[in-house]
Amino acid sequence: MMYKPKRKRFKRKKSWLSPSWRTCLPMTVMILLMWSYAAVAQDLSNADLQRWLDTVWVVMTGVLVFFMNAGFAMLETGFCRQKNAVNILSKNLIVFALSTVAFWAIGFSLMFSNGGFLDPIMGGLKGFFFSGREADYKNVFTSLDWANVPLSAKFFFQLVFAGTAATIVSGAVAERIKFLAFFIFSLFLVGIAYPITGHWIWGGGWLQKSVGFYDFAGSTVVHCVGGWAALIGAIILGPRTGKYQGGESFAIAGHNLSISTLGCFILWLGWFGFNPGSTLSADPEAITHIVLTTNMAAATGAVAATVFSWRYFGKPDLTMTINGVLAGLVGITASCAFVSVRSAAVIGVVAGILVVLFVEAFDRWKVDDPVGAISVHLGCGLWGTLAVGLFSAGPGDLYEKGLGPDKGLLLGGGIGQFFAQLVGILAVAGFTVLSSWIAWTLIKMALGGIRVSPEEEIEGLDIGEHGMPAYSGFEIKRDHGL
Amino acid sequence: MMYKPKRKRFKRKKSWLSPSWRTCLPMTVMILLMWSYAAVAQDLSNADLQRWLDTVWVVMTGVLVFFMNAGFAMLETGFCRQKNAVNILSKNLIVFALSTVAFWAIGFSLMFSNGGFLDPIMGGLKGFFFSGREADYKNVFTSLDWANVPLSAKFFFQLVFAGTAATIVSGAVAERIKFLAFFIFSLFLVGIAYPITGHWIWGGGWLQKSVGFYDFAGSTVVHCVGGWAALIGAIILGPRTGKYQGGESFAIAGHNLSISTLGCFILWLGWFGFNPGSTLSADPEAITHIVLTTNMAAATGAVAATVFSWRYFGKPDLTMTINGVLAGLVGITASCAFVSVRSAAVIGVVAGILVVLFVEAFDRWKVDDPVGAISVHLGCGLWGTLAVGLFSAGPGDLYEKGLGPDKGLLLGGGIGQFFAQLVGILAVAGFTVLSSWIAWTLIKMALGGIRVSPEEEIEGLDIGEHGMPAYSGFEIKRDHGL
Amino acid sequence: MMYKPKRKRFKRKKSWLSPSWRTCLPMTVMILLMWSYAAVAQDLSNADLQRWLDTVWVVMTGVLVFFMNAGFAMLETGFCRQKNAVNILSKNLIVFALSTVAFWAIGFSLMFSNGGFLDPIMGGLKGFFFSGREADYKNVFTSLDWANVPLSAKFFFQLVFAGTAATIVSGAVAERIKFLAFFIFSLFLVGIAYPITGHWIWGGGWLQKSVGFYDFAGSTVVHCVGGWAALIGAIILGPRTGKYQGGESFAIAGHNLSISTLGCFILWLGWFGFNPGSTLSADPEAITHIVLTTNMAAATGAVAATVFSWRYFGKPDLTMTINGVLAGLVGITASCAFVSVRSAAVIGVVAGILVVLFVEAFDRWKVDDPVGAISVHLGCGLWGTLAVGLFSAGPGDLYEKGLGPDKGLLLGGGIGQFFAQLVGILAVAGFTVLSSWIAWTLIKMALGGIRVSPEEEIEGLDIGEHGMPAYSGFEIKRDHGL
Repeated sequence: MMYKPKRKRFKRKKSWLSPSWRTCLPMTVMILLMWSYAAVAQDLSNADLQRWLDTVWVVMTGVLVFFMNAGFAMLETGFCRQKNAVNILSKNLIVFALSTVAFWAIGFSLMFSNGGFLDPIMGGLKGFFFSGREADYKNVFTSLDWANVPLSAKFFFQLVFAGTAATIVSGAVAERIKFLAFFIFSLFLVGIAYPITGHWIWGGGWLQKSVGFYDFAGSTVVHCVGGWAALIGAIILGPRTGKYQGGESFAIAGHNLSISTLGCFILWLGWFGFNPGSTLSADPEAITHIVLTTNMAAATGAVAATVFSWRYFGKPDLTMTINGVLAGLVGITASCAFVSVRSAAVIGVVAGILVVLFVEAFDRWKVDDPVGAISVHLGCGLWGTLAVGLFSAGPGDLYEKGLGPDKGLLLGGGIGQFFAQLVGILAVAGFTVLSSWIAWTLIKMALGGIRVSPEEEIEGLDIGEHGMPAYSGFEIKRDHGL
Repeated sequence: MMYKPKRKRFKRKKSWLSPSWRTCLPMTVMILLMWSYAAVAQDLSNADLQRWLDTVWVVMTGVLVFFMNAGFAMLETGFCRQKNAVNILSKNLIVFALSTVAFWAIGFSLMFSNGGFLDPIMGGLKGFFFSGREADYKNVFTSLDWANVPLSAKFFFQLVFAGTAATIVSGAVAERIKFLAFFIFSLFLVGIAYPITGHWIWGGGWLQKSVGFYDFAGSTVVHCVGGWAALIGAIILGPRTGKYQGGESFAIAGHNLSISTLGCFILWLGWFGFNPGSTLSADPEAITHIVLTTNMAAATGAVAATVFSWRYFGKPDLTMTINGVLAGLVGITASCAFVSVRSAAVIGVVAGILVVLFVEAFDRWKVDDPVGAISVHLGCGLWGTLAVGLFSAGPGDLYEKGLGPDKGLLLGGGIGQFFAQLVGILAVAGFTVLSSWIAWTLIKMALGGIRVSPEEEIEGLDIGEHGMPAYSGFEIKRDHGL
Repeated sequence: MMYKPKRKRFKRKKSWLSPSWRTCLPMTVMILLMWSYAAVAQDLSNADLQRWLDTVWVVMTGVLVFFMNAGFAMLETGFCRQKNAVNILSKNLIVFALSTVAFWAIGFSLMFSNGGFLDPIMGGLKGFFFSGREADYKNVFTSLDWANVPLSAKFFFQLVFAGTAATIVSGAVAERIKFLAFFIFSLFLVGIAYPITGHWIWGGGWLQKSVGFYDFAGSTVVHCVGGWAALIGAIILGPRTGKYQGGESFAIAGHNLSISTLGCFILWLGWFGFNPGSTLSADPEAITHIVLTTNMAAATGAVAATVFSWRYFGKPDLTMTINGVLAGLVGITASCAFVSVRSAAVIGVVAGILVVLFVEAFDRWKVDDPVGAISVHLGCGLWGTLAVGLFSAGPGDLYEKGLGPDKGLLLGGGIGQFFAQLVGILAVAGFTVLSSWIAWTLIKMALGGIRVSPEEEIEGLDIGEHGMPAYSGFEIKRDHGL
């Protein structure tokens, strides 16, 4: 626009373009236009194709994450007693339905829309009851602009993540919570609490923009948040009747380890969506690297937990193998894109040992967590978040400068990233503990208690809460009143 | 063709093409040819890449639909008694094998090949024993020409749909039908009945071409057809022994709600193939929109059925939560590509309430449907088909003119589309009811009855039909002779 | 380079390029460069896009194959007694973790890296503890250069295959093996034995390069290897206590056919990754053809085994339907890319009948295989490998010359391919039988026996090996001391 050619000069001097070249200049435009037009009219452009492919990737991985709900349902139900199976199944089935409604109505907007001057702290209110129509949300979900897929794809992928956080709570409060109390808490968690801390980290909030906190696929965003909410719920509820008697802790065996193992496999499967899908793009190097780190940590977590519990308890404990798989998966979630495969193996080993220790510790502290959800998701979520500061390969190795955390402490980096991770952990802990406590307390007041009656607990929540047994036709054995 | 340039005029007047432009004309051809050749020789063209991507999409979603067989198997088995578990598992496993054989031998051709002058009513006979070789079928499967994937991909995707229809029947006739009778009926349904009505709607037949009936992913084509066939089967069989005594209906509890819930999750998962895969193309806007409407209806269906049954029966009933999920999914199947996310929420709510009412109604009418298959698939299949006429966003909103139904009645459209949907419903009902009745009756005559003996029914079909129990090693409880 | 234009000649004679053409020659370069640059700078090239898509395909199918571990776990556990369920679940969960570690540490390198002068016999040692970083392995994994995906994708896909081989062993040695013995044997099988024979066939070894042996997705590489190792294990262990008494064979019923059937469905699902994924590319014609042959063989295998066992035993046996599905799938694995859909139907029928005969035969030979793993994987693996030599469509039909086996014997080809298949079978059998025997024997010596004590076997391995029952809360029935 600012350029005006001087004709004289071109006539006098030899043009920098030879005549052959010059005569063809208009041609450039013509051919490129024809080519562009042909591409538009007949075929998708390369940019379109990438967007199509990225969308397929996001949808398929999101579907795998959705399926984790089945994994949690089977895992938790099998780890509990048969008299409470219907209750746990009901909770785990309805919770994703509730999550869908709550995240659609409120959560998605609070987490990812632009909160204006409040943006460091929370998202805005313009995306409530998400319509699915991208044109309705110009400049609303700006924090997700980086991803090259339809807004509906982003919504779906974030929804299945939000659902996961709510499911984590289910296991820790199992076998004694009123169905309605869990129903309401799930709406609160997915609609309000999870989106707010999620906004800090993934929605453009202060932890992301000011602190440089990194959590690739949600060790903190999903697992610690679910874990803190579960911990507060378990504390407020108190332990199951008969669990702690005369200073001793009684093991209450799960009723169906077949479906628990199936649940573990389904969760492992789902994590192949959870972690690599968080790229929101089908970039081959990124997704296959994340597949390897994810699987490696799961494997070393399983082996470490099995061998460690073998030493510890004298026998290889299937429930610890299961929790070891999950520990490794939760542990690698924050750093899966930032660490090497070998670091992932170490992260998994530590997670596998930690989960055994955490299970023992929570039991000693009389926090009754029937399925080990707090140990797995909170314990290893914390470890995984810190692991980013310890093991990150650093910019220039696995990723470009500005796209990931600083080099980890154990790899010769500074303490800075580890400190940022610590800040994030504390901030999320503070908010989630406080807000969960308030929510559980309010629900308790509203319902006149969140715990079923002692009689109902002894008889089983299936009959009390739902009026039906899970296993009609089988002879049931009652041990020690449990 | 009509244009003849006048040379003189060009000579005298300044050409509309400057010399620079003119000299390069041959170049256009040259460069574009070089570019085309380069693309062909070294890389896939953009059209090829789209075809590759579409095929991956169709295969992956088809695989998810295949997995729905596992969902139905678990759902139905768990809802029935343990003494009939082997029988139900056998039926649900063999049915997809039989469907594969029947659809390969006959069904695919009857449904999608060109029927010549009979084409409005049924497909042709040239595609029997489908070879998988596209070149063998020039101008045969013309009704599927619109999709940009190999014919084998189309066959596979349609096969897994056909299998679904047959599976629906299994649940409604459970706990009393002879294995061989179901075996034969499945061959009939997938080989003949399903393909004929399917041809009317998806194969270029009269409902598609003359009536303007729309059923995007099969509320009618799959679910109503399966549901009608199941209804007729259940009526001809009569209720299970002991179900209705002295005018009262006795609840017969399922033996394993853990696997039923798992089945529900697997079906929900499978629907992420069923509905978005029906695009037969990976178009990002289309598939993600359908993912959202599908999931939303499932969620609101689950919540509505749970809350409604809670009011109705006093307690939240897990089997109703499960059926609510399925009701929402069946309900959104016909319209998933045509309605907004918010309409999907409404469609799901209505479906969730309807399924509870249908279960009650069929029980009052003494139609014994052990797993609620008729309520879910027929009841909500009808609702879903009508919902197209009520909620469609209309051309120009979600889709182009000529690609979908008219605007729905409740959104200010006319009654036309609703009426077209009604015509389709009635036509499919008429044909399926009649042909199923004939088929069941012929099978009854051939086998000397389609129902097992009363003694076998009391003892359980597992021993009677298959000679083995499902749960060896567990003590079994027999309640009230059930 | 060799061409030097003679200026004079061009001046005198009319150029073969008209001036219009000639003046634009530089333009060609310019435009093509601009276009290339534009593509590079802004969008992925078509080659990149294909690589992205191929990677998504490999990852998604690899994930399906991973999930087969869940299928094996459910299938095998359900087929055994409840008193050994925890043991089988533990074995099937830890085995993939162990496989990951062993294949990562050693196996992948032994199987696919260049073994230098030893390459015909085994891979090299340069890829131990695979780092996941492609740049670290220039000229190392040359046998996988043909696939157009990141090395990490290749590692993941090969890892899930290796895991499958180890899982096969689990079923045959169930209900009597020490947990630790299986633990160690799995490390041996995945770390050493499987990679060596695998190298011969897929890693550039002698069977691939010198014999022309073909095994597309692993009837021999995976299933026969797992099957031979299982057979040797079962023989060394001896039959379960009470299985053969007084010359008679007693049927020991599985405890949970619901989860066994689920396992079968999961395996069928996984095979849609196993076979079509083995293309390592999303080529539409190839993958959809393989989907069809795979599914067809599974279906005809199921129907054949059901009908045949119906005739044979008098009733349709669910366990035979399940094994028929798997028989068809194992049977088509070697040839899925090389045979027509109709040949696949025949291969499946034969496999379905064979598996029933094999189960009977192994029982007669007093080889106690609780889940039929040897019959399915070894029996039908052998059949599937030979089927390549019998049914291959031949070059020029489904594939280009040099890309697959010669035309099959039954289709009018020669005996050559059949003979090559036979050589491969014998070589793999010899090596695997010998090395497995040595490994089992060494483990036996190291552990003072690989079998649990008779008391532990009677009580069940769950309490003895793991200290926990799988089904706490249910009344257990003990039949005939079994």
